[in-house]
Amino acid sequence: MTATRHEIRQGAYYDSVVLMQLQRSLVQLENVQDAGVVMATQANRDVLTAAGFSLDEIEAKPDDLLIVVKAASEEDALTAIGKVDELLKARKTSSTADFRPRSLESAAKNTPEAEWVLISVPGRYAAGVADEALELGKHVFLYSDNVSIEDEIKLKQKASALGLMVMGPDCGTAIINGAGLGFANHVSRGKIGLVGASGTGLQAITSGVHNLGAGVSQAIGTGGRDLKESVGGTTALQALELLGRDPETEVIVLVSKPPSPKVASQLLSAARSTGKHVVVNFIGYPVSVEQVGNIHFATSLQKASKMAVSLLGKETTQPAESVEGYLRGLFSGGTLAYEALQSLHAFLSPMYSNIPITPEQKLPDSTKSQGHAILDLGEDEFTQGRLHPMMDNDLRIRRMWQEAKDPETGMIVLDVVLGEGAHPDPTSELAPAILEIKEKHPVEFAALVIGTPEDPQQMEEQISRLEQAGAVVFQDVAGLTNYLVARLSTPFAYEGKPLDQSQFQDQFAAINVGLESFYDSLKSQGFEAVQVDWRPPAGGKEDLMAILAKMKKG
Amino acid sequence: MTATRHEIRQGAYYDSVVLMQLQRSLVQLENVQDAGVVMATQANRDVLTAAGFSLDEIEAKPDDLLIVVKAASEEDALTAIGKVDELLKARKTSSTADFRPRSLESAAKNTPEAEWVLISVPGRYAAGVADEALELGKHVFLYSDNVSIEDEIKLKQKASALGLMVMGPDCGTAIINGAGLGFANHVSRGKIGLVGASGTGLQAITSGVHNLGAGVSQAIGTGGRDLKESVGGTTALQALELLGRDPETEVIVLVSKPPSPKVASQLLSAARSTGKHVVVNFIGYPVSVEQVGNIHFATSLQKASKMAVSLLGKETTQPAESVEGYLRGLFSGGTLAYEALQSLHAFLSPMYSNIPITPEQKLPDSTKSQGHAILDLGEDEFTQGRLHPMMDNDLRIRRMWQEAKDPETGMIVLDVVLGEGAHPDPTSELAPAILEIKEKHPVEFAALVIGTPEDPQQMEEQISRLEQAGAVVFQDVAGLTNYLVARLSTPFAYEGKPLDQSQFQDQFAAINVGLESFYDSLKSQGFEAVQVDWRPPAGGKEDLMAILAKMKKG
Repeated sequence: MTATRHEIRQGAYYDSVVLMQLQRSLVQLENVQDAGVVMATQANRDVLTAAGFSLDEIEAKPDDLLIVVKAASEEDALTAIGKVDELLKARKTSSTADFRPRSLESAAKNTPEAEWVLISVPGRYAAGVADEALELGKHVFLYSDNVSIEDEIKLKQKASALGLMVMGPDCGTAIINGAGLGFANHVSRGKIGLVGASGTGLQAITSGVHNLGAGVSQAIGTGGRDLKESVGGTTALQALELLGRDPETEVIVLVSKPPSPKVASQLLSAARSTGKHVVVNFIGYPVSVEQVGNIHFATSLQKASKMAVSLLGKETTQPAESVEGYLRGLFSGGTLAYEALQSLHAFLSPMYSNIPITPEQKLPDSTKSQGHAILDLGEDEFTQGRLHPMMDNDLRIRRMWQEAKDPETGMIVLDVVLGEGAHPDPTSELAPAILEIKEKHPVEFAALVIGTPEDPQQMEEQISRLEQAGAVVFQDVAGLTNYLVARLSTPFAYEGKPLDQSQFQDQFAAINVGLESFYDSLKSQGFEAVQVDWRPPAGGKEDLMAILAKMKKG
Repeated sequence: MTATRHEIRQGAYYDSVVLMQLQRSLVQLENVQDAGVVMATQANRDVLTAAGFSLDEIEAKPDDLLIVVKAASEEDALTAIGKVDELLKARKTSSTADFRPRSLESAAKNTPEAEWVLISVPGRYAAGVADEALELGKHVFLYSDNVSIEDEIKLKQKASALGLMVMGPDCGTAIINGAGLGFANHVSRGKIGLVGASGTGLQAITSGVHNLGAGVSQAIGTGGRDLKESVGGTTALQALELLGRDPETEVIVLVSKPPSPKVASQLLSAARSTGKHVVVNFIGYPVSVEQVGNIHFATSLQKASKMAVSLLGKETTQPAESVEGYLRGLFSGGTLAYEALQSLHAFLSPMYSNIPITPEQKLPDSTKSQGHAILDLGEDEFTQGRLHPMMDNDLRIRRMWQEAKDPETGMIVLDVVLGEGAHPDPTSELAPAILEIKEKHPVEFAALVIGTPEDPQQMEEQISRLEQAGAVVFQDVAGLTNYLVARLSTPFAYEGKPLDQSQFQDQFAAINVGLESFYDSLKSQGFEAVQVDWRPPAGGKEDLMAILAKMKKG
């Protein structure tokens, strides 16, 4: 025999740690078999149902606190529920006796040296607290999730204009001036600076760096949505700009789930501008090259740690002078076009193609290029009723002229695929066309030659003819990519107010609003911290909150 | 002054080489400035328009031949067009005097040693010719594009049942028994066998292998659509099965644009079953590991060549004994979950997740796993009103029980992230749960531990407690992935009729239907070849073709 009883506390607010501890205390009571203490969201109800609680008849709203107990008898269950207030009180008295200001404002007044505010209150209150922290001139570590993207954008724009940083929302980890915020591993201080839109990604790489015997200067979390196009990578760009200037940082690591293509190219441009080696791990964002200038692509978290450590002490080289205008790649080989697109799309934006990787890259009209463009001229649309461009140069030479006449074109790229079946002497036609075009139009040419010295076209002869016509020749996509990125990517211009470098040195002090365990963690690491005795405004009632917010503005 | 004149030849069929040569001859005539000789498709009209021809008033159907000439005067233009028949005839008489059977059937009778038919006739006729070749018991190299996917599926299923291979449609390249088919580079024979759904991909890698001093056993093209789910990778699977058996092949390379996830996992399963080292370059299909057993992932064509050559002479190891049932990954770290998904989704199918990479991976209900599943329990949906699973094990332990009770579960995977902010001693709760579950249910456990020896939880202690409870522990996703793939992937069972190994040895002879340049190429390489003097059935008239097809069937 078992009996289940429950209690609902409407709109009650408790720290999640308190709820967890209450649940544990209930389970430990005599004859209690299981207990749940959760906000009554659908997900939490599903978990309890899966655990064997029957909740069908319980009516509770998502912001109600649901306490449910399964015990040997009805009496045991009721007894347990009757002890809830006592258990909650027991918890209260055990808390520390430190000074606890009731508001962020008074905390800031009492601890002016605290330049950071850690926020882990429930999502619907978090944006308001973060905004208050910015008003007080503090950087924000925003652990809370369930914050709207509109609020995130507003907060980050405000912070950027003030020379402040908002890490998060949903930022799980950071290491600032040696202090671990949120979830953070104990790692040595050192010369590797990290920027991450992924919490456990940062943790795995900082741990890896430490376990390989190196150390971390700063590890800056951005929150998982920072690299979405609407947020624009604001925090990541601030962080790259800061680490670029930071004398303590020698190698930078940038890790995230796949960024939007536009943000990716901005981040890589900012990374290039640091002049330092930057290891990039865009998890699940395929790039077909391993190194482009000072940028190094890692395919896994473990690899990112290893690469960063191995780059310590290695000098970087200056990028080449850049060309004005867009890239126009006119490929006869589909796979070559695709690999080139795959390698370049993270760097050059906007990028269009008739064989797009992402839908937004789709060139609206294949017969007319726009932006940076990579065309596979061997696609069906171009080859109906005519020979493949590997056999017949006519289509390609016409297109070379068309691109050259477009004043937006800066660089034309061709592939030349040798071998059986292909044109017996392709550069006898392509090289004169390049020469003639270069006489009339200010465009540059690069070429990718694929073949072997044994091919019937005489590879060395083909290459030297292209070079004599003024094309720069490569024999693999990686080499071509390095050259094109160096010549075509636009320099990064940081737009916000720069962060104050002096705040990212040895001192660290913070105000914590929310989960007490983060406060305890800072203290145990030996840093100064203040815990705000935070309560939801207006007791958490939505309508009252709206009125309060209006009164504050007015 | 210039004048443009044109001529239309309705439904006329010419080899594309003939058209290209006619166009060149016209341009070389006195006072002719430019000329176009193309099938009047929209794309070809666009190219001519872009080249400055005014075609607005020319009415021609896509299968009409359009001849257009721009010359100094109307008279010059008309003179040029008047010479078209003469120029076409001049071409005819220059062709070789070899015997040319009028049909594939008579070619096959006259050259029974030809086991291959190369087909490069226009797309709408190509499937019919390929079907005839299969009926005659020949392998097919199908260069033609614009063949419907329905026809491709029919042809490949027929071939598979007969123990024959159809490379293509739209197959640009292959090297069979040393003979280059279509576009192919001159490379040494050697111990590296290739399978490719991308023409210039195969060319770049075979060239790379040769330029690195090694050689090629077979290079088998599949056509670009072979790895789509509807086609199912039929040709690629045949090729892997063949190369697995081939005593001349020591290392295999598999290259393609992104395959469908289902086909990818089948191909990798087939690749594992070869027991040989297989270098995989799924261009643009991100995989976060570099090696899983005998499978090695390359991120570029150049790297694929290098890896293949470096693996020559290296022994492979036997995979571990496999577990029955599905993987259920219960992660607290979002990035760890994502990297694991990224690493495993190419191997294990069907794969579901609440943080899917592809839309079809989306788990319909996060509270209930199906198939192989990787869950990020730190996602918003699970953390509203409760602590993050890195702090509170309750949700995870409940889910472990839920998964263990599902008879389809074979392996449960947990991550354990240490450090500040995280649970002070996670395995004090997780390890007993693992022990208890293993006593009651036949599931296995693996764990990924992220942290440093300096973390407050004492990493070594955490690891040893997990191991004592019977979990296999890893400290990076790559190690975990290798273990899980070895234990969980199902062995590959080849379903078609196996290809005849003896046909993939030293002899090569072929019948060519279509582009004469492919015939010329085979002859110049020293191989036996027959050119069929092919004409479109019923003079290319669609209605007559349909009647002929019916009569043939009847």
